[in-house]
Amino acid sequence: MPATAPDDLRTRPVVGVVGAGQLARMMVPAAVELDLELHLLAARADDAAAQVIVATTVGDERGLADLRAISAGVDVLTFDHEHVPTAHLQTLQADGVVVRPGPHALPYATDKSVMRRGLAAAGLPVPAFAVIESPHELAAAVDAVGGWPVVVKTARGGYDGRGVWVAAQPQDAAAAFAARVPVVVEERVEFVRELAAVVARSPSGQAVAYPVVESVQADGICVEVLAPAPGLADATSTAAQRLALDVATTVDCVGILAVELFERPDGTLVVNELAMRPHNTAHWTIEGAVTSQFSNHLRAVLDLPLGSPAARAPVTVMANVLGGERPDVHRALHHVLAHDPALHVHLYGKQVRPGRKIGHVTVTGSDVDDLRRRARHAADYLGGVIDE
Amino acid sequence: MPATAPDDLRTRPVVGVVGAGQLARMMVPAAVELDLELHLLAARADDAAAQVIVATTVGDERGLADLRAISAGVDVLTFDHEHVPTAHLQTLQADGVVVRPGPHALPYATDKSVMRRGLAAAGLPVPAFAVIESPHELAAAVDAVGGWPVVVKTARGGYDGRGVWVAAQPQDAAAAFAARVPVVVEERVEFVRELAAVVARSPSGQAVAYPVVESVQADGICVEVLAPAPGLADATSTAAQRLALDVATTVDCVGILAVELFERPDGTLVVNELAMRPHNTAHWTIEGAVTSQFSNHLRAVLDLPLGSPAARAPVTVMANVLGGERPDVHRALHHVLAHDPALHVHLYGKQVRPGRKIGHVTVTGSDVDDLRRRARHAADYLGGVIDE
Repeated sequence: MPATAPDDLRTRPVVGVVGAGQLARMMVPAAVELDLELHLLAARADDAAAQVIVATTVGDERGLADLRAISAGVDVLTFDHEHVPTAHLQTLQADGVVVRPGPHALPYATDKSVMRRGLAAAGLPVPAFAVIESPHELAAAVDAVGGWPVVVKTARGGYDGRGVWVAAQPQDAAAAFAARVPVVVEERVEFVRELAAVVARSPSGQAVAYPVVESVQADGICVEVLAPAPGLADATSTAAQRLALDVATTVDCVGILAVELFERPDGTLVVNELAMRPHNTAHWTIEGAVTSQFSNHLRAVLDLPLGSPAARAPVTVMANVLGGERPDVHRALHHVLAHDPALHVHLYGKQVRPGRKIGHVTVTGSDVDDLRRRARHAADYLGGVIDE
Repeated sequence: MPATAPDDLRTRPVVGVVGAGQLARMMVPAAVELDLELHLLAARADDAAAQVIVATTVGDERGLADLRAISAGVDVLTFDHEHVPTAHLQTLQADGVVVRPGPHALPYATDKSVMRRGLAAAGLPVPAFAVIESPHELAAAVDAVGGWPVVVKTARGGYDGRGVWVAAQPQDAAAAFAARVPVVVEERVEFVRELAAVVARSPSGQAVAYPVVESVQADGICVEVLAPAPGLADATSTAAQRLALDVATTVDCVGILAVELFERPDGTLVVNELAMRPHNTAHWTIEGAVTSQFSNHLRAVLDLPLGSPAARAPVTVMANVLGGERPDVHRALHHVLAHDPALHVHLYGKQVRPGRKIGHVTVTGSDVDDLRRRARHAADYLGGVIDE
């Protein structure tokens, strides 16, 4: 906290945010409510968050000079995305900047080899894996994880299904080596669905776990989130929350941690991916939980007491709006708001490009099938997939 | 809507807002969600809303030049408060600016003589009243409204109990004539409590009515709002909503209209005051209703379809935080968030001054007594009334 100045007795907390996508943008309502000041480092002046944050600096999110500039006077530095060079964050820490999550934790979200090794060493459930550097090591790695087919991932740089291949033979894995970063070779996990367990954790050790959700995927992208995961056994739900809290402690994450999970046919769980920031699988919390993930992320990094993660409705469904052939999303907005007065629409202020996440919609209620139909209709109409 | 530019196919709506208090500030989350752009005219750079709106112009909210500047390029001009000179708004309309609510409607909220006469002429229930200009007319006015005691109000310029006197004899009314504006003399209505019926109305005529609330007053200031009003008879609730919709039609208001009502012992209703903007008695809708009053105000003035006003919980309680002896509200925030993880705190970014509204708190649930205790505790702690 800054010292109390004689001419201004308020000690309004200041949070620096690196990266100006929709995640930083959705921190704004939470910050306005609690009178927290956001200082943003944006790559471009028209980035989603730069449009709506007064104290925006346009600069290089990976450059030390601009990171230093944005860090001046903040109580804590946090992130819209994890892709900031670790060495720079260590330098900032040495300068006295409070960085949360810290540079010791972030590699678990940016490097799949670090994550797999760290979680395995802590006894947490991950697929059988091997980390290799070249195609010459592939055959041995495939044997080590149980044989073909395998999943092959670049350790760094992938997202939304990019940088991931299912390989039934050596040539299917060839592309993974082009990026010249380590490659993680994993067993292809048999699973019935994908779940996500999202937690918030404070530096003082307080932690809260949101209800466990189902993440419905298409082409490696999350298209819908069902909260809570329909029909999830209580024991599985509790195990997923405990696992996410264990991961948070293991990697010493502060803020929101999203743990993406595979649910196996026998109900056991295995960790797929981690994210250390507000996450798409918890956008439903804005309307569906007592405290949104964005509010709890800001509270956590400031070491303010965390808010209740309890659900506010029996079921909440979120659907992502992916850009399509309809460039003017505001004209489409008229239609979907008239069609469903209980719909919550979130638009990110982004230029429409095919396949780009430009917004999401949320509906709350009790009938998951009805809610999915309504969310799907609105997302498809806004994305230009349907015309009525 | 602006014309579609070839280099930017989005037609993001732009709303000009005159006045930068907490009402304009609380429009921000709704605007961010729907990707609506706000252009703000603020009296001071550190006004509550000016802190959080990127496109802020500091200028004279009552000066035509600055009103014209803020109106350039907006789709509609709306208000944080109603105190903008009518002649200026008429000039802006003549310039082609869309002003909502319009200058024909706003006097019903800024001039009690206009409001009383207009509603009475439409057959809507108001107290017996007379409008006078000087103390010499007082005796006849008191006779006309049924004798002493009476309520005496300056027609313009009062708020939060200022400009209102209960008079049992002529000298009690003397102060009302000092402002040299017309004075409204009214019967002193016998009432059991104060209610508020809040509606949103679009230029196309669509309207929605929020659940009717009880407004708990202390010293002429609303200190708590109970939604819905506890134990309110269905017939009274329906009558209040219908009355508010009738008032909206009568005065041709666009946006949020708040109708403050007295509930008489026999359950009949009489109009006390009107406000044509988001109103303190509907702050509970941010968490307590499907669509907040701030979202519906922006939707209404843009003629976007209105959202559902339905309650999201059996009971929602809001308590205002009034500034007191505790200048640093952020230190107090730690305590109240730790004390009640389900609490929603809204701070307005204002310097603390005794009696000033600096924020509000909201809790949702089912037990009105429990919710009132929790809201009261948090508001009193934040305001410095209590220390634990």
